[in-house]
Amino acid sequence: MNQGKPPFWYSETGTSHEFHNFSVKACLFMGRTAFQDVAILDTYEYGKMLIIDGRTQSAEDDEYIYHEALVHPAMLTHPNPRQVLIIGGGEGATLREVLLYGSVEHVVMVDLDRELVELCQKLLPEWHEGAFEDPRVELLCADGKAYVEETRSTFDVILIDVCDALEAGPALSLYTESFYRQVRERLRPGGLLVVQAMELSGLDYKDHLAVRDTLLQVFPLVRSYTTFIPSFWAEWGFLVASDGPDPAVLSRDLLLERLSARGPAAGPALAAQLDFYDADAHARMFTLPKDVKAILNHEVPPAEAPPEGPSGVS
Amino acid sequence: MNQGKPPFWYSETGTSHEFHNFSVKACLFMGRTAFQDVAILDTYEYGKMLIIDGRTQSAEDDEYIYHEALVHPAMLTHPNPRQVLIIGGGEGATLREVLLYGSVEHVVMVDLDRELVELCQKLLPEWHEGAFEDPRVELLCADGKAYVEETRSTFDVILIDVCDALEAGPALSLYTESFYRQVRERLRPGGLLVVQAMELSGLDYKDHLAVRDTLLQVFPLVRSYTTFIPSFWAEWGFLVASDGPDPAVLSRDLLLERLSARGPAAGPALAAQLDFYDADAHARMFTLPKDVKAILNHEVPPAEAPPEGPSGVS
Amino acid sequence: MNQGKPPFWYSETGTSHEFHNFSVKACLFMGRTAFQDVAILDTYEYGKMLIIDGRTQSAEDDEYIYHEALVHPAMLTHPNPRQVLIIGGGEGATLREVLLYGSVEHVVMVDLDRELVELCQKLLPEWHEGAFEDPRVELLCADGKAYVEETRSTFDVILIDVCDALEAGPALSLYTESFYRQVRERLRPGGLLVVQAMELSGLDYKDHLAVRDTLLQVFPLVRSYTTFIPSFWAEWGFLVASDGPDPAVLSRDLLLERLSARGPAAGPALAAQLDFYDADAHARMFTLPKDVKAILNHEVPPAEAPPEGPSGVS
Amino acid sequence: MNQGKPPFWYSETGTSHEFHNFSVKACLFMGRTAFQDVAILDTYEYGKMLIIDGRTQSAEDDEYIYHEALVHPAMLTHPNPRQVLIIGGGEGATLREVLLYGSVEHVVMVDLDRELVELCQKLLPEWHEGAFEDPRVELLCADGKAYVEETRSTFDVILIDVCDALEAGPALSLYTESFYRQVRERLRPGGLLVVQAMELSGLDYKDHLAVRDTLLQVFPLVRSYTTFIPSFWAEWGFLVASDGPDPAVLSRDLLLERLSARGPAAGPALAAQLDFYDADAHARMFTLPKDVKAILNHEVPPAEAPPEGPSGVS
Repeated sequence: MNQGKPPFWYSETGTSHEFHNFSVKACLFMGRTAFQDVAILDTYEYGKMLIIDGRTQSAEDDEYIYHEALVHPAMLTHPNPRQVLIIGGGEGATLREVLLYGSVEHVVMVDLDRELVELCQKLLPEWHEGAFEDPRVELLCADGKAYVEETRSTFDVILIDVCDALEAGPALSLYTESFYRQVRERLRPGGLLVVQAMELSGLDYKDHLAVRDTLLQVFPLVRSYTTFIPSFWAEWGFLVASDGPDPAVLSRDLLLERLSARGPAAGPALAAQLDFYDADAHARMFTLPKDVKAILNHEVPPAEAPPEGPSGVS
Repeated sequence: MNQGKPPFWYSETGTSHEFHNFSVKACLFMGRTAFQDVAILDTYEYGKMLIIDGRTQSAEDDEYIYHEALVHPAMLTHPNPRQVLIIGGGEGATLREVLLYGSVEHVVMVDLDRELVELCQKLLPEWHEGAFEDPRVELLCADGKAYVEETRSTFDVILIDVCDALEAGPALSLYTESFYRQVRERLRPGGLLVVQAMELSGLDYKDHLAVRDTLLQVFPLVRSYTTFIPSFWAEWGFLVASDGPDPAVLSRDLLLERLSARGPAAGPALAAQLDFYDADAHARMFTLPKDVKAILNHEVPPAEAPPEGPSGVS
Repeated sequence: MNQGKPPFWYSETGTSHEFHNFSVKACLFMGRTAFQDVAILDTYEYGKMLIIDGRTQSAEDDEYIYHEALVHPAMLTHPNPRQVLIIGGGEGATLREVLLYGSVEHVVMVDLDRELVELCQKLLPEWHEGAFEDPRVELLCADGKAYVEETRSTFDVILIDVCDALEAGPALSLYTESFYRQVRERLRPGGLLVVQAMELSGLDYKDHLAVRDTLLQVFPLVRSYTTFIPSFWAEWGFLVASDGPDPAVLSRDLLLERLSARGPAAGPALAAQLDFYDADAHARMFTLPKDVKAILNHEVPPAEAPPEGPSGVS
Repeated sequence: MNQGKPPFWYSETGTSHEFHNFSVKACLFMGRTAFQDVAILDTYEYGKMLIIDGRTQSAEDDEYIYHEALVHPAMLTHPNPRQVLIIGGGEGATLREVLLYGSVEHVVMVDLDRELVELCQKLLPEWHEGAFEDPRVELLCADGKAYVEETRSTFDVILIDVCDALEAGPALSLYTESFYRQVRERLRPGGLLVVQAMELSGLDYKDHLAVRDTLLQVFPLVRSYTTFIPSFWAEWGFLVASDGPDPAVLSRDLLLERLSARGPAAGPALAAQLDFYDADAHARMFTLPKDVKAILNHEVPPAEAPPEGPSGVS
């Protein structure tokens, strides 16, 4: 009927001078929880999208890239991950990936926003695929920082999968040095911390660099890695920190062996379960081009910084 | 949190070279009925909006202008309107305005789309204000053209309040000469037909003119009138057709008298019930500037027509 | 080639929750003068558009409406306009309309921005039609407020055709009571002041009302009048102020007589020179609907004010 | 002044359901050459951008990524590139990168559109950096296909840097099997062909795959490689084809050696001249994640294809 452009749009702001528009097919939810503005929309290009405070968290068609990239480098670097902590990750897809490991005995997932988790449980089954029902899962709707301060448990892998560190917002305290110090206390020997860490490219890196530098105050080894995520229209950065194990130097042979040896207690090996991640994806993500390495080495003069990027954490 | 532009937008296309964007606060409904795509959104600028097939039907904050302009010129020109037919008008606001007349004994409202009417009944109480409950109302969810062909009833005023006549769509048959001939058969002596008739300005008039010319094949007297409707970002046209009574020459004194004398059986006079319409509004709407009169007189050469306006009906 | 939407757009912001997009065919100028950001774009829908500080000043296809509405009500109300002052009006189209009167002996046009005037002279011949060459014209590139303070000349009609009164910007001082007092000093007996005065509709009126109320501090008679201007996607307000002559009560017969009797020294009468303005357009513009009158009478409670309208002047 | 969003935008369409908006600071050129619509805009986020037929060709701030990725893998795989042919590449930046090799004796650059090349020479000095003045360069404004058919010259490296293969447009014939057969005739022994080859990610690959499959009809060895380019908001694909030399298996040691040994006749080695490309960037680009390899191996079922991607070439 209407021959023009489609009528309903989700418009994600990059800076005040750049934005990206997604045409909306259906609105599954739009409202405010106690903590944040949440929308779950079905889009023509990327399927369902979860949007918090106006920013894409993940999209049905490419969340496999984001969640496999977040989870598997650390999980495969660890010799035998049994206890895992997820902070955030309301969609349940980080949980889903962690549960692929038969070695995992217990996963604590701490998300601040119960309403959000319930919306995801109800409306995003393609993400969690029933992960919340797994008996190994302990779901806590609580403040991640308080949990880490108070718990006596320790973990092999800790995954921080929360909203970007913007100037305000509930996730801000989860990007601080004091928080990372407490997280480090909760890692078992040989344990690894993973943090989703915003855009990282030769042009857009300030937020990532701020988080990376904060982690370097706490951990002797911090690695940045990146992959392109289409619905984020960006190369996305992740950080893995530890007192020793280093995903960047994990041998290809060992990685391949673990991809074959690990997996669900029943069913095909991990290698057969994944869509994005394999030994090549691992190598690609940890092998950064010259401009990005220069940024991480602080060789880029301040004048090169984009003038209007959202401000970081430091 | 997100300091950029708001994330959710309804974008109404004018032509492929012009569109208008409304920021969305909440999504009350988005889906497809048996006949059309329907959305009911809450917007920051105009309150709730009803959108069909990507085009605004009416908005909470200024629907009073549209519906008062549609209903009262004909109702006040008629000496004693008792039987009224509304075709379309799913929001119930045309009905609401008609029911303000104590003289009205019976209103038949025929809307094709039962699901749409039920959505409006549930989600747009600010429009209908309970009008559907009035015992004088007979609501039929049926094809307006078939109803007019088959009914034996006759009416003092017939109001056609349906979607714009685009190249396709359920309303197309309601803009044809054959339909208007049947409508004329259903008018009582002295009766008037009103048709919502799309934009009418010195720059945008093709659709209105096509409908006006079609009506002139059937009725001896056809008047165009217009008013600005903010949420339509346009000067909107209406057409009133009859075999005699002419709203354009109704005397101001008679109009004022009727505004005082008419109204609900109980309660204040009509004059006190209206927000937009009064004798001045009536005079303004029927007094057209030189460029618009030239268009209606077919004095505007074809070369002046906008190159990409949506095509008309003829 | 590119089958999507056109690539280049001028997006005019209404509020942070509403904007309007015009597809751009060509860019004739984009840059900054000493005073303001100026763009002259050719658009598909409205021809060339002059845009200052991101806001449409006028468009080729409908500037006739704006400029005829601005100039003729006051010029025809005055019994014999000979001396005219224009403040602003860089496009030269206000000047063009004033020069249609053979009675006019001298027009002083004072525009702050010489670069803007030169751009308009060069790039907008459809607007000025050579008006700047008329020997009756005295063009001054100077501050309008300073000119009015310092000049000893007096005028029959003064037209203020400057940018909207926003919180900042060069035009701000031209919307103050002190300025209007000085303007009144420069009016000859029977003289009239006209001010372009922003949107005026039942939903959008705050800026207009602020200017109107300021004028009422200075002049005994102030009239608001409005007309729809398509490229402004708005009903536009104008104000005429005087110590006596009242365009709102000018008789239709006298208006028709003057439209026939006045005009260029050589050539057809004024009535034949105009596209928008005639006696009906005059009547329409000064006959306001009930909601707008209620606003002008301060009957509208503050709660009805739109939440995010641009702030006014007061 | 205007506190809303910026007024001028370049909107790049992905599909009818996705687009990306860049705020425009200045318009350096907007018009049509004999062959295509060309715009050169200065943007706030990416500096100057060259836009042809509504699609970004390259942007000042990240063209180094695109052009280094296009040129160096093949140039460094070749043992001694002396004769180079560039088809397209109007910006002059592909030329700039090729001229970094002291071994290069002669570069023929064939671009269809003389007006475009002249615009780039004048307005994009940051791209070409004077490359057109190098005495080794022979610039021909001619049809690349005709040139390849008619020339008797042969080349060590041929770079095809033309607009995307859309359904129509001047570049279409440069994506055909017959053209690639002629190109192969013009390669010297050990020569390599490089083709810029549109998006390549797990979600967007149809155009790339079509070009890859066409090349496989002609060349025994065809490699896809990719890198993220911010202003393209995409992971971009390139193709290198040859009868033997394979950039994907070039040893890291040999690559490092060549980066040190090669470079301008006078001045620092190539390794010191590049901003994006180094041995890690090379490895990253040729190491593709699992989903992309599955696409290239035709393991992805048709149902996975995005429903509205722009159609390919086949």
